[in-house]
Amino acid sequence: MKTKLEMLSFEKIVERVRKLKSDTILIIVDERVWSLYNDKFSLEEKITDKKIIFWIAPRGEESKRISEFEKCIESLLEQGVHRNSHLIAIGGGALSDFAGFVASTILRGIDWSVVPTTLLSMVDSAIGGKVAINSRFGKNLIGAFHRPVNVWINTEFLNSLSEEEIKSGTGEVLKYAFLSKDIYEMIIQKKGRNEIIKACANFKLDVVNEDPFEKGKRKILNFGHTLGHALEKASSLKHGVAVVWGMAIFFLIFNEGKYLNELKALKNILGWGDELPPWNVGAVPTNNIISYMEKDKKIVSGDTIDIVLVEGIGKPVIREYTIEEIKNKVKSGLDESINIIL
Amino acid sequence: MKTKLEMLSFEKIVERVRKLKSDTILIIVDERVWSLYNDKFSLEEKITDKKIIFWIAPRGEESKRISEFEKCIESLLEQGVHRNSHLIAIGGGALSDFAGFVASTILRGIDWSVVPTTLLSMVDSAIGGKVAINSRFGKNLIGAFHRPVNVWINTEFLNSLSEEEIKSGTGEVLKYAFLSKDIYEMIIQKKGRNEIIKACANFKLDVVNEDPFEKGKRKILNFGHTLGHALEKASSLKHGVAVVWGMAIFFLIFNEGKYLNELKALKNILGWGDELPPWNVGAVPTNNIISYMEKDKKIVSGDTIDIVLVEGIGKPVIREYTIEEIKNKVKSGLDESINIIL
Repeated sequence: MKTKLEMLSFEKIVERVRKLKSDTILIIVDERVWSLYNDKFSLEEKITDKKIIFWIAPRGEESKRISEFEKCIESLLEQGVHRNSHLIAIGGGALSDFAGFVASTILRGIDWSVVPTTLLSMVDSAIGGKVAINSRFGKNLIGAFHRPVNVWINTEFLNSLSEEEIKSGTGEVLKYAFLSKDIYEMIIQKKGRNEIIKACANFKLDVVNEDPFEKGKRKILNFGHTLGHALEKASSLKHGVAVVWGMAIFFLIFNEGKYLNELKALKNILGWGDELPPWNVGAVPTNNIISYMEKDKKIVSGDTIDIVLVEGIGKPVIREYTIEEIKNKVKSGLDESINIIL
Repeated sequence: MKTKLEMLSFEKIVERVRKLKSDTILIIVDERVWSLYNDKFSLEEKITDKKIIFWIAPRGEESKRISEFEKCIESLLEQGVHRNSHLIAIGGGALSDFAGFVASTILRGIDWSVVPTTLLSMVDSAIGGKVAINSRFGKNLIGAFHRPVNVWINTEFLNSLSEEEIKSGTGEVLKYAFLSKDIYEMIIQKKGRNEIIKACANFKLDVVNEDPFEKGKRKILNFGHTLGHALEKASSLKHGVAVVWGMAIFFLIFNEGKYLNELKALKNILGWGDELPPWNVGAVPTNNIISYMEKDKKIVSGDTIDIVLVEGIGKPVIREYTIEEIKNKVKSGLDESINIIL
């Protein structure tokens, strides 16, 4: 089933919920989002002909533990879920990962929709049906592919985000600019925020429709992430910042530094000031970074690794490298990166 | 992906494992099965070019708790699973439900194969990809559809089963006899055990291939189970016995007692002696049975329920009834059942 994506006001979202064919609606919502926006929805007042069951989840990755999964799913089952119930996730990426995994496993899978509340989830994590909870040995290691029926985007949520959260999402927007010439042009032409968000979300949706289970093309969405994830862990950079450096270092490794200026220009248009290398005050934690890359069970299979790089703006390609080759390239890329300012 | 079904010796099963393309094999096995058959496989001796990771699971429904799921999946992740790992489940229905759910969720799903060790799992639960663990509020309420790549059946396992376990599987074989004229004829003609098992397994596989997510035709496999599950809970009958009574009472309700003689004849051919109604020594727990049917979240959606009945041998049909209608019919069917001996 394909996902339907719409940009909607709060009122329209409530109307969409009212029109769902299910008589039982399960709402899984981030506690902070709910405290800020509860009155905008007033679901219980406005929808009286359906049974509405709530689960208020802790904020962020905290919600993605197996113990939280157990508590949530047992509570929903106790309150009366059936196969035609519809689950709605309201929150950022962690919340929709969690809620989507609940939707995928409760009664062997029920329909669900997402209302993403962060920039990152609007353009990325709410779309595509990758849902998961965390293991003690890594994030998102327990999960499923379970695509939402609807993604309802209301950009008013962005007004309550911190600068860090905006940066995280902007990192993904910058990634799309190198995967799609159209999105690149839109940013250069300084199109409006909502238009750019819609273009990014639709770009991802198209890729996912073509390759739902990440057997091929979908891998291009990992551009900047193979190294980005390792940077995130080794130096506690925020996701979006790590992705930007993941792209920048790949430009150094695979494109002889080409596109660094473009990346910087786009960053500035999107309101992101100069960014110094995160290791400018100390030694580059090269060994840590490489060891995290090697441990990434999702990307490494045997001795090789699929790497996404760009051969031009809007021209991503997937190349297979041995881990040894990549280690050496990343080492020199990291060394070189000390001298650049983004 | 379709499941490949084969009847194999222990030696051939080991050979199939050796030929899998994965370099890492995860074995989830029932502790009793492993203590009895470990030396028949000798996997670690015979397969030296693959990494083999074991998880020995408690016997039966005990293994299907969320806490066991957590322990198992964390242990496998710790020992090094990657996306091309292949999981093999060796055990009865509870074990393959559990192991299949692990396979469906670890790294968002890896390939798996099943070696069923009970009659019930050979003809039913190992086939079709319905995998699940238990909630505090019911069995199999947390799960997925994740079909095994292979089902490798070795009927030598049946030699170590108890009479009760054989009855459980025989109940399912009897169900197939009413869903398929061919299987009915095979039993009447006293064909060999292996041949009948293979026919039942292949019948289920065909139905599942046609309707993997139980939107339509697959529901016929629930014949005898809608009431059977409730009987199982309300009177602690074993699964197979409950299914047989579930069918018998439906014959009373929907077929005016027709097919009861056929059921009895088939039962006797399969070596199952006379069966008295489980409530012959006391009152029929009608209210309990009906309340369990109503609570069955998997079958009830809103006010109606899909009922499978037969209009002839090999002619199952699905009919929608209101819960009120079914309640009344079941009440009178239960009352009538006191007088029959199967």
